[in-house]
Amino acid sequence: MAAAASRGLLVDVHTHVYLPRYVSFLRSRNSVPRIFTRGTPDGSTEERLLILDAEPSGGRPMGPQYYERDLKLKFMEKHGIDISIVRLVLIASNPWLDFLPASAAHQLANELNDDLETYCSTSANVSRSPLKQLYGFGLLPLVPQVTTTSLLETVRQISALPHLKGIIMGSRGLGKGLDDDALEPVWAALEKAGLAVFLHPHYGVDGKEWGDKDNGHVLPLALGFPFETTIAITRLVLSGVLDRYPNLRILLAHSGGALPQLSSRLASCIDHDPIVASRLQHDARYYLGKLYFDAVAYGSEELGFVSDQKRLGSKRMFFGTDHPFFPPLKETDKWKSVVENLEAIDGVYGWTEEDKAGVRGGNALALFGLHNP
Amino acid sequence: MAAAASRGLLVDVHTHVYLPRYVSFLRSRNSVPRIFTRGTPDGSTEERLLILDAEPSGGRPMGPQYYERDLKLKFMEKHGIDISIVRLVLIASNPWLDFLPASAAHQLANELNDDLETYCSTSANVSRSPLKQLYGFGLLPLVPQVTTTSLLETVRQISALPHLKGIIMGSRGLGKGLDDDALEPVWAALEKAGLAVFLHPHYGVDGKEWGDKDNGHVLPLALGFPFETTIAITRLVLSGVLDRYPNLRILLAHSGGALPQLSSRLASCIDHDPIVASRLQHDARYYLGKLYFDAVAYGSEELGFVSDQKRLGSKRMFFGTDHPFFPPLKETDKWKSVVENLEAIDGVYGWTEEDKAGVRGGNALALFGLHNP
Repeated sequence: MAAAASRGLLVDVHTHVYLPRYVSFLRSRNSVPRIFTRGTPDGSTEERLLILDAEPSGGRPMGPQYYERDLKLKFMEKHGIDISIVRLVLIASNPWLDFLPASAAHQLANELNDDLETYCSTSANVSRSPLKQLYGFGLLPLVPQVTTTSLLETVRQISALPHLKGIIMGSRGLGKGLDDDALEPVWAALEKAGLAVFLHPHYGVDGKEWGDKDNGHVLPLALGFPFETTIAITRLVLSGVLDRYPNLRILLAHSGGALPQLSSRLASCIDHDPIVASRLQHDARYYLGKLYFDAVAYGSEELGFVSDQKRLGSKRMFFGTDHPFFPPLKETDKWKSVVENLEAIDGVYGWTEEDKAGVRGGNALALFGLHNP
Repeated sequence: MAAAASRGLLVDVHTHVYLPRYVSFLRSRNSVPRIFTRGTPDGSTEERLLILDAEPSGGRPMGPQYYERDLKLKFMEKHGIDISIVRLVLIASNPWLDFLPASAAHQLANELNDDLETYCSTSANVSRSPLKQLYGFGLLPLVPQVTTTSLLETVRQISALPHLKGIIMGSRGLGKGLDDDALEPVWAALEKAGLAVFLHPHYGVDGKEWGDKDNGHVLPLALGFPFETTIAITRLVLSGVLDRYPNLRILLAHSGGALPQLSSRLASCIDHDPIVASRLQHDARYYLGKLYFDAVAYGSEELGFVSDQKRLGSKRMFFGTDHPFFPPLKETDKWKSVVENLEAIDGVYGWTEEDKAGVRGGNALALFGLHNP
């Protein structure tokens, strides 16, 4: 207890919620993404979340951990008591809306942003000690054919909601990826509003890469997700967005995927392609130092490496849990995924105690303009 | 000169040759892979190598650097004089044969292996000082429908050719990837013969990931190639091949792609999937420590990170150039790609002079059973 308490503030910047409105909506659907009920071998039933048509194992089990705030708070408390003091959590509202027509996406995004504000702002009503705080990443209606007006209106909505501290974004933009010129006004508005962008994968890469063997979700999760993030941010860099919006703050899921390890190779490939090189103001590795990285990499070497790259240091790195994904195999266990990520931060060679405390909590306060409770 | 000479032996483990027989064959083809001639803006003509149908920029320029041994030797000498003493080079014969029927692939593989032996063994006839030595990676007819007999016969052929020190392998195996059960006798034969496997990408990942913007070859080369290698070796690990053939020696191109940075995430994903976990004898990171990595990553941080992972150290890492790819923009220049990779080795924090000398040359002598000329 004492050792845990001495760790101080712990802020989870990477945690998900499926808001009840979105869960109801997915339950009503007959095509992906959807939630369906199926029988289990023991004669009961279970809900499954299916994101992609070709998803292995019929999707994944979907339980109240996904949508019940009380379970989120209990999860926080569980790891606060035994591992550290969890007080703040940033909720990444995870629905992608890109399967919807533009007007429906706009309406649902706006409703979900309001729901998320309520979800976060009323959490203090739940009596707990120490007090937990919830903040969220809002949602833009990033779908084909949406109007710029609609997107900018939603940016304004999110800016006005006090518990929303940024937006979550996938890799597809309006259907053509994040290097789409049509997103230009969105980057400008996000930079101006000071809203951070949490770039999070969803689709992975083409499922045929995983072959015929049954490896469950291991390949799409372990490799596909980080590859998707890496491709998205690289295309964004190559399009010059980070040159044109130097104050845009982009937080990359899973410690930036493969970008840090491939950044010198990327720089070399750009160097050998004069047309691409001439479009950029800096060496590719410069942009790495402009980005932010969660510390969800499960290993000290990986975290230390990210902070070593371009000497970006620990200040741009942030603890996260990925809750409610990667639950323990037995319900009573502490979450190994959380324990591993905390141990990884503890074990980084070269990080001072101050560095580690920053990654656990202080850096997130600074990035999102929060106050220490 | 003195500084360069003091560097000692420099062994290039990652360099390509398109043998003349293969070049002629590609020139005769009308579908990919093929070599074709086209006009240039200045009214002359050039040859282009087209590997994939959807390749950007109409493929890449194909010149005598790809096939003329004398140019390979001159390239070695150029960087030997000014940067280090290049004496040994391992040639990765780069043709994939998977577009051919099994019998044609078998015959061509055998002819090309004999050609490569001749290419390497007769290089001493070219008068140069210091003497260059050439060794090669042979080629198996890895195509759908090939018989095991044919594959094992070619393994025996390669084993009997004194200048072939291993085989080069892509990611597709017999069409179903490297986790195909049909490859089991091949792994057994390669382990028994003590032939190292150089795992090298060729196809990248699905081109639709790169979007509509013209980024030349940057995305498929900088990201697609390392992703392909990462997927291939991960599928191999998950299939248990490294458990069943613990003495199989696999050298990964481009410093293992993204595998080192994603290995703890991979371990975590496996931990959370009991069926996959139960198939493996070790934590995923254990297998990282059983592999070999070229040092073709263009940055010191990346190299240091690979050697830090699982404390695998520098002994499993090897200098390479990727010649004739990434040529300098001006023909008279030294090759920036080579200079960068040498500087990267020099700059690794924590490597002793002995470590660095090993990566430049000594480690390769040990892995391939060569003698210092």
